[in-house]
Amino acid sequence: MNEKELFEIKTDKHDADIYAGAKKRFDDLAKPIDGFGCFEEIVCKIASVQKRLIPDISKRALIVMCADNGVVSEGVSQTDSTVTAKVAKLLGEKRSTVCVMARDCHVKVVPVDIGINTHEKFSGVMDKKIAPGSGNIARGDAMTKEQCLAAIKTGIDIVRQCADEGFGIIATGEMGIGNTTSSAALLCALTGDDAADVAGRGAGLSDEGLNRKIKAIKMALNIHGYEGKASGRITPDYAFSALCAVGGLDIAGLCGVYIGGAMYHIPVVIDGVISATSALAASYMVPGCKDMMIASHKGKEGGTNRALSLLGLRAVIDADMALGEGTGAVMLFPILDMVMNVYSEGTGFDTAGIEKYERFAV
Amino acid sequence: MNEKELFEIKTDKHDADIYAGAKKRFDDLAKPIDGFGCFEEIVCKIASVQKRLIPDISKRALIVMCADNGVVSEGVSQTDSTVTAKVAKLLGEKRSTVCVMARDCHVKVVPVDIGINTHEKFSGVMDKKIAPGSGNIARGDAMTKEQCLAAIKTGIDIVRQCADEGFGIIATGEMGIGNTTSSAALLCALTGDDAADVAGRGAGLSDEGLNRKIKAIKMALNIHGYEGKASGRITPDYAFSALCAVGGLDIAGLCGVYIGGAMYHIPVVIDGVISATSALAASYMVPGCKDMMIASHKGKEGGTNRALSLLGLRAVIDADMALGEGTGAVMLFPILDMVMNVYSEGTGFDTAGIEKYERFAV
Repeated sequence: MNEKELFEIKTDKHDADIYAGAKKRFDDLAKPIDGFGCFEEIVCKIASVQKRLIPDISKRALIVMCADNGVVSEGVSQTDSTVTAKVAKLLGEKRSTVCVMARDCHVKVVPVDIGINTHEKFSGVMDKKIAPGSGNIARGDAMTKEQCLAAIKTGIDIVRQCADEGFGIIATGEMGIGNTTSSAALLCALTGDDAADVAGRGAGLSDEGLNRKIKAIKMALNIHGYEGKASGRITPDYAFSALCAVGGLDIAGLCGVYIGGAMYHIPVVIDGVISATSALAASYMVPGCKDMMIASHKGKEGGTNRALSLLGLRAVIDADMALGEGTGAVMLFPILDMVMNVYSEGTGFDTAGIEKYERFAV
Repeated sequence: MNEKELFEIKTDKHDADIYAGAKKRFDDLAKPIDGFGCFEEIVCKIASVQKRLIPDISKRALIVMCADNGVVSEGVSQTDSTVTAKVAKLLGEKRSTVCVMARDCHVKVVPVDIGINTHEKFSGVMDKKIAPGSGNIARGDAMTKEQCLAAIKTGIDIVRQCADEGFGIIATGEMGIGNTTSSAALLCALTGDDAADVAGRGAGLSDEGLNRKIKAIKMALNIHGYEGKASGRITPDYAFSALCAVGGLDIAGLCGVYIGGAMYHIPVVIDGVISATSALAASYMVPGCKDMMIASHKGKEGGTNRALSLLGLRAVIDADMALGEGTGAVMLFPILDMVMNVYSEGTGFDTAGIEKYERFAV
């Protein structure tokens, strides 16, 4: 895949008739109008993406893109980069935090080594390594164009495989020490925001650490010419160049997952700030793929909500989480299961013998 | 139980040592510090209420207080009051919305007829009827003092029974056409807020319906002398009198559930606006019982957040839900299960071979 092929990817609009039909089905249930609030919209969206009135989300996967980030050498993280490999190993062994959570809600965890800085292979981790980590964005490019395209293609291919295997919904996650720095830099490049407004404490930075992080983001924006540059409509080419310059292999891989979701009609659940920034970049490179995205949680890093609001999405979990691995995205599944059960088999006004509520324009 | 006995109920503080021990256990897990955000605080609170480091929430109940509200005759609801009985019947038959949701997360649904306006008995519904509905608060008192005390006592007794049967956590819910009006009136009486700021559209009111609702609340506050009255510290006596005047049997029953939770060391999950207003009233009547409360969702009615913030609680689900029956409270359980699983069996830094994150004062 070259740049031109990437930008020419066409995605369907979601099916408006099925969306309307799903909303009507909710209105016919013996409950107050719009009683499930945002969850009704999410289920309607899933139905319209899958193009069936009763969508099937029983088979679900979490794709966890794992990569190292060269910017760690600027002292932007409390831990050193070997933790990426250690947690990837735990993911492969189904022992990491999200694996424990995924077990109960029957999510298949798919960890992907898309750029971990090690020669070791981990059992249970897909080996899709493009490079042993991205470059230090404060001193040079994160990736070459070829590496970035390969990472995006990797994400797309994994989603195609999920589609072939009958998965109905995909959640996104990541593991990469330093990636809240690269995603903050990318968000600034895509929005024109100031580094200090976007950078958070990641996995728990001290004041000095946070200052180093802000400085590294500013350096990255400065040397690549992105400081306050973004304005008006962001073109696919602009977004792709920014991703190569200040993004990361994990972020590019996640972009591919969102694009793949749009290509293969699989709704994709966004996790926290890295995942949301990737979603924003993907939506600029392949317009229309945001129609297939679902937000899960607001996260602790301010950038999450910034990216979600630019995508026109609203997170339904608000708990200051900052864990990564897709933990927030996975939390959405058991709630969706509850709502889906009511949606697909709940008691209607007719069988309950109750007069239907009327919808007023409000 | 008389008023004096109610106000003299003593509740334990939750166990600060166990709270701190639980927080340390979270910090020892191989994940970023405070990674689970608010959910860590909730689990720590449950542990400290149950007084054990690894609390047990596997056996959980939802208590749904069902009652009619005389204020319905002011035209404050889209449906007539017979819907209360119809949904109570569905609750007893395990066919209502929350029953479908409760099934998957193993919650025992306990519907209670504490004041439905019917002579019919419903299979599966506890018969604890105190009166066939509360009085019309816009024209007179909701309840006599004796009725209100009996309703509170009913809630306490049901929680004691749950404690005897080994339930580790309780969620609250209600079913009562018109009860968003009585809870809004009670919230205004307890806060001095204006009716127009607190009243919402309940199960889906038109503009005229909303105006009638606000008018009914203003009338209720006016005839009972509560308009703009609340200021400074709310005494137990003031809260109890307001509950009798402008509350309802369902609300009083829920007050008893919160008080019972504090007496028998069972954390109680708050649902939406009626449940949250009841929690606030309970916390004024029996100070200290708010230490045992857990918020679930923000809800669509503005009053929910007003009551929660006065209780010092934060809701973690934010989805504009307005369904009742305890649906929002029940949604918290599968998420708590996920976090509890990680908390009780997750991989520590020690076994993961990762250096522990350091907690910085931020």
